[in-house]
Amino acid sequence: MQFHHHGYVSGEPRVQDAAGTGIDRPAELPDEMDVLIVGSGPAGMLLSAQLSQFPDVVTRIIERRDGRLVLGQADGIQPRSVETFQAFGFAERIVAEAYNIAYMNFWGPDPDNPRNIVRTARTEDYAFKISEFPHLIVNQARVLDYFAEAAAHGPGRIVPDYGIEFLGLTVHDEGQHPVEVRVRYTAGPRAGEERTVRARYVAGCDGARSGVREAIGRKHVGGVSLHAWGVMDVLVNTDFPDWRTKCAINSEAGNILHIPREGGYLSRMYIDLGAVAEDDAHHVRTTPIDEIIRRANEILHPYTLDVKQVAWHSVYEVGHRVTDRFDDAGEDGRSPHVFLTGDACHTHSAKAGQGMNVSMQDGFNLGWKLGHVLTGLAPETLLETYSAERQPVAQQLIDFDREWSTLMARKPEEISDPQELATFYLGTAEFPSGFMTQYGPSAITTDAVHQALATGFSLGKRFKSVEVTRVCDGNVIHLGHHAKADGRWRIYAFADASAAGEPSALGTFAEWLASPESPLSRFTPEGADPDAVFDVKAIYQQRFEEVDISRVPEVFLPKSGPLGLTDWEKVYAAGPDGWRDDDIFAERELSRDGVVVVVRPDQYVAAVLPLEATAELAAFFDGCLRPQQAPVAAR
Amino acid sequence: MQFHHHGYVSGEPRVQDAAGTGIDRPAELPDEMDVLIVGSGPAGMLLSAQLSQFPDVVTRIIERRDGRLVLGQADGIQPRSVETFQAFGFAERIVAEAYNIAYMNFWGPDPDNPRNIVRTARTEDYAFKISEFPHLIVNQARVLDYFAEAAAHGPGRIVPDYGIEFLGLTVHDEGQHPVEVRVRYTAGPRAGEERTVRARYVAGCDGARSGVREAIGRKHVGGVSLHAWGVMDVLVNTDFPDWRTKCAINSEAGNILHIPREGGYLSRMYIDLGAVAEDDAHHVRTTPIDEIIRRANEILHPYTLDVKQVAWHSVYEVGHRVTDRFDDAGEDGRSPHVFLTGDACHTHSAKAGQGMNVSMQDGFNLGWKLGHVLTGLAPETLLETYSAERQPVAQQLIDFDREWSTLMARKPEEISDPQELATFYLGTAEFPSGFMTQYGPSAITTDAVHQALATGFSLGKRFKSVEVTRVCDGNVIHLGHHAKADGRWRIYAFADASAAGEPSALGTFAEWLASPESPLSRFTPEGADPDAVFDVKAIYQQRFEEVDISRVPEVFLPKSGPLGLTDWEKVYAAGPDGWRDDDIFAERELSRDGVVVVVRPDQYVAAVLPLEATAELAAFFDGCLRPQQAPVAAR
Repeated sequence: MQFHHHGYVSGEPRVQDAAGTGIDRPAELPDEMDVLIVGSGPAGMLLSAQLSQFPDVVTRIIERRDGRLVLGQADGIQPRSVETFQAFGFAERIVAEAYNIAYMNFWGPDPDNPRNIVRTARTEDYAFKISEFPHLIVNQARVLDYFAEAAAHGPGRIVPDYGIEFLGLTVHDEGQHPVEVRVRYTAGPRAGEERTVRARYVAGCDGARSGVREAIGRKHVGGVSLHAWGVMDVLVNTDFPDWRTKCAINSEAGNILHIPREGGYLSRMYIDLGAVAEDDAHHVRTTPIDEIIRRANEILHPYTLDVKQVAWHSVYEVGHRVTDRFDDAGEDGRSPHVFLTGDACHTHSAKAGQGMNVSMQDGFNLGWKLGHVLTGLAPETLLETYSAERQPVAQQLIDFDREWSTLMARKPEEISDPQELATFYLGTAEFPSGFMTQYGPSAITTDAVHQALATGFSLGKRFKSVEVTRVCDGNVIHLGHHAKADGRWRIYAFADASAAGEPSALGTFAEWLASPESPLSRFTPEGADPDAVFDVKAIYQQRFEEVDISRVPEVFLPKSGPLGLTDWEKVYAAGPDGWRDDDIFAERELSRDGVVVVVRPDQYVAAVLPLEATAELAAFFDGCLRPQQAPVAAR
Repeated sequence: MQFHHHGYVSGEPRVQDAAGTGIDRPAELPDEMDVLIVGSGPAGMLLSAQLSQFPDVVTRIIERRDGRLVLGQADGIQPRSVETFQAFGFAERIVAEAYNIAYMNFWGPDPDNPRNIVRTARTEDYAFKISEFPHLIVNQARVLDYFAEAAAHGPGRIVPDYGIEFLGLTVHDEGQHPVEVRVRYTAGPRAGEERTVRARYVAGCDGARSGVREAIGRKHVGGVSLHAWGVMDVLVNTDFPDWRTKCAINSEAGNILHIPREGGYLSRMYIDLGAVAEDDAHHVRTTPIDEIIRRANEILHPYTLDVKQVAWHSVYEVGHRVTDRFDDAGEDGRSPHVFLTGDACHTHSAKAGQGMNVSMQDGFNLGWKLGHVLTGLAPETLLETYSAERQPVAQQLIDFDREWSTLMARKPEEISDPQELATFYLGTAEFPSGFMTQYGPSAITTDAVHQALATGFSLGKRFKSVEVTRVCDGNVIHLGHHAKADGRWRIYAFADASAAGEPSALGTFAEWLASPESPLSRFTPEGADPDAVFDVKAIYQQRFEEVDISRVPEVFLPKSGPLGLTDWEKVYAAGPDGWRDDDIFAERELSRDGVVVVVRPDQYVAAVLPLEATAELAAFFDGCLRPQQAPVAAR
């Protein structure tokens, strides 16, 4: 964590100085704003935390409810989401309070006495094999609390406008704020009052029944299956020995997906209520909690649940829906001004623990793009990449979830191999962990011409962190963890084999970076810190003691802030043990002749280039950033 | 982290339910209280966080300042202190914001050109070799913030009474509240007003010029040396390559102890100002900051500092003082009612980074004892162990620090071996890490008769945690981290080799624990949770999959709280890999016939006994607890 950069800070370093519109942010929703976020779920709250890092952008977030979410329904947290929490500064806190999934166990009918269930398989959770972060269970309400804190403590000081609901919107063809939005106060002294406000962009993060989606006429394609599930969060005493382990239970009496929750006592159970008649007309949804508990006991036989408290319960039929496009861009090539995220554009079963995670990544994808366009760093066309990148991810999710929820709902006689579900679970592990997303080539992701120089940093996939050693102090840290969700591009310059200060490809690259032709010179606003847009780092192949930091090029030790202080934390050595087999060059199969890896503000790998390919690097940023002439307010 | 135990909790789980005197805690300092803490430094704030876990005790903490400490001077945090932070629930947060000491480097005169300094040694920090926690640097003000949060979020809801200073006290011979204390308001509407209040016990945490110490007539023995140091916290630009590494610099022009601070930019320098004339009369303390900076530059030659901001600076002569006794107990055997902690009873140089740490352990030692006596769990004689245990620790600290600060102040010509300082530093590492403290036999620490059954858990030393596997969910966790600073005794029952449910020494021990003769029955107040006083855990030798939790004795799966919920998190398996060499039985050299390890509420090992030695275990607790007959309010 870096602070004291603008002078000594006495208090909580997680609270950044207010800046721009955050300095005197009006309590009341203004008539005009840059971004209006509709809904304070995971996508909307992440978006507000991200835009709080762009304090020159006026961002507001409205929410129909009159306050904080008290009880959320989502609870599955992929390792990819924990990586995201790390970037927003609260991973260590949420990990400490969450349930950590170490194992998933499978139960099936006892061959000797099929009325009883027996444990058929234990599978160790896959998370640590593909990320340094675990796979967690924690209530959505707490995730929102942490994002709310990040938004409120960022320079933009964004807090939700609770008690305001979205009624409708019209996108006009002209004007600085082309989206006209009708809202109504649902709480407080103005309750019942309707207002019209104008925004440059609107993000519809308003859930499965999205009014924003309806207002822009996008279709939610798909439907509801004829299979019902009961779900309950319960505090119980039980003799079921896996009460604190995630389990898939397949019994003659039906199926249960069992998920222990944070805090050591609570668990969630998804309980198979079986097929629903075609003419049921959602009657199944009135199934009482006693019946759900009775079913759970039947399935768990010979074990029993003594339910002490029901924190929440519901009944639903599995539905799968996805929207054809996630924005309002017209056939005429007009740039989008309204975006859909999360459940507003993709809904599915809860059981793969995906929804909240994919929603947050929608927000992470959209946030920096809005920030860059609205601060003049990027052309408006950048916003077209949002739907282009995220709609296929949602489609993939729906396909995966359909397969998983079908497998989960089978009868024992439909299962030939009792290990089959465990095998599917492990075989597809990278998907539910959140690491299958791979964005295709575009203005912000290059093609794979030079991929072989850094095989372990797949283009279009998230930058997969590795431990390295910080040269200035010998601390072993994750290279990726220095990348905060601050809207900046990252340029990682992996050095050739020469030592710091010796003639080298890295030295030549550093000279070019400092020249007027480099993206740093062209796209950093005048008067801004030299690392305001690009966070540039060098990683040497030597052990850290062998890197003489005095001889490292200055572009990797930039001076910034009102005191012009040197940033010592951008120079790394392969490690933890230098040239050993497990250093970052070996683990990510990086060329020992050096390689440049460019990472987007949302942590996806955008480009892999030789150190010599400066023209290609310049051309890449020419394609997605706008040259900066006039000084703009520093972020 | 365990919660949802009394029903579903929506918000921050680190905020416990208010209870007892915390439910309607008066804002104004009352006329009578159980404990009055004077001073809100590290010892006082830890004490208030600890006593907040005893909400039936009326605890107040007065502080002369009118609010939070803005800039503290201490900053060195031993691994032992981080262990303590873990017990109070904030280790992961403070680690994330602190500077982590990975290396300490040593600099001396260049043999070829003695006017210049050169790096003579690098030593990896020792912390991880003796604790799972690192050695940190973070400002005292932040440490106090976290303890203040723990105190305010505990059931006792303790917040400091700012703006009240201590004037004096008299200990009377009789009455429920024998200590009469005179205080004065220093801020707010009552500023200037004097009051007399009464307390059962007073803790003097009021620093080196302690008024409490003076009031009870204890002597602060020792003096000030004739060697002065300047100290400054500065933001600089510099070509000194180890600006971000802890260094001891020994140059012809003098010595510097250099300590990087949290946040990536700030560092602290202790700069040798040389010998002071006998008739100086503290004139050296007026040395201007420019002179200190000039000296620093002289010592660092050929490197230079360009100071951008001085956050704090001071000049001091090294002093070493220790108080003869840390309480007011009389020669007549009267029990103590006034206690001294921290700088009030031991002061020394800052450079070994010890002060704040030893002060916190004073508070940790005293807190639970006050809590137990005031809730009737323990006899008043327990309080006599405070001074008996902590005074020798302070004496040891003074001796160590005198040696270290003398070594640090030598001239190059006094040094025969340039590695000598590094060798001393590493050779004595366990002391500055906080792990040399070993309490002698007393009513709360048994003698070493059975020590051989658990060689790695030294009697009187802190319980050194090892990773084990939680049986209920397969999570690998540190056994010691489940022990929160909640005032409870821990009984760790390490099993013999039999499996759960088979006839075994552990099974027999568990039966006895559940019997009316056991300490659990005798000392747990009627109506309280079965684990209100004793937190009992079982650790099996098998891999976790081989432990059938259904067959584990019920005493290790207690039901508690208003819902009578089973606690699943008290049953562990040796691990992470069971019978392998690195399991907890091997690492701590535990008898494979089983062993009972009793740990005090402040995490020190109190007893090591065979599973069969139930009579000895009963006798031990008979010596330090009072049998409970009547129901008392549950904690």
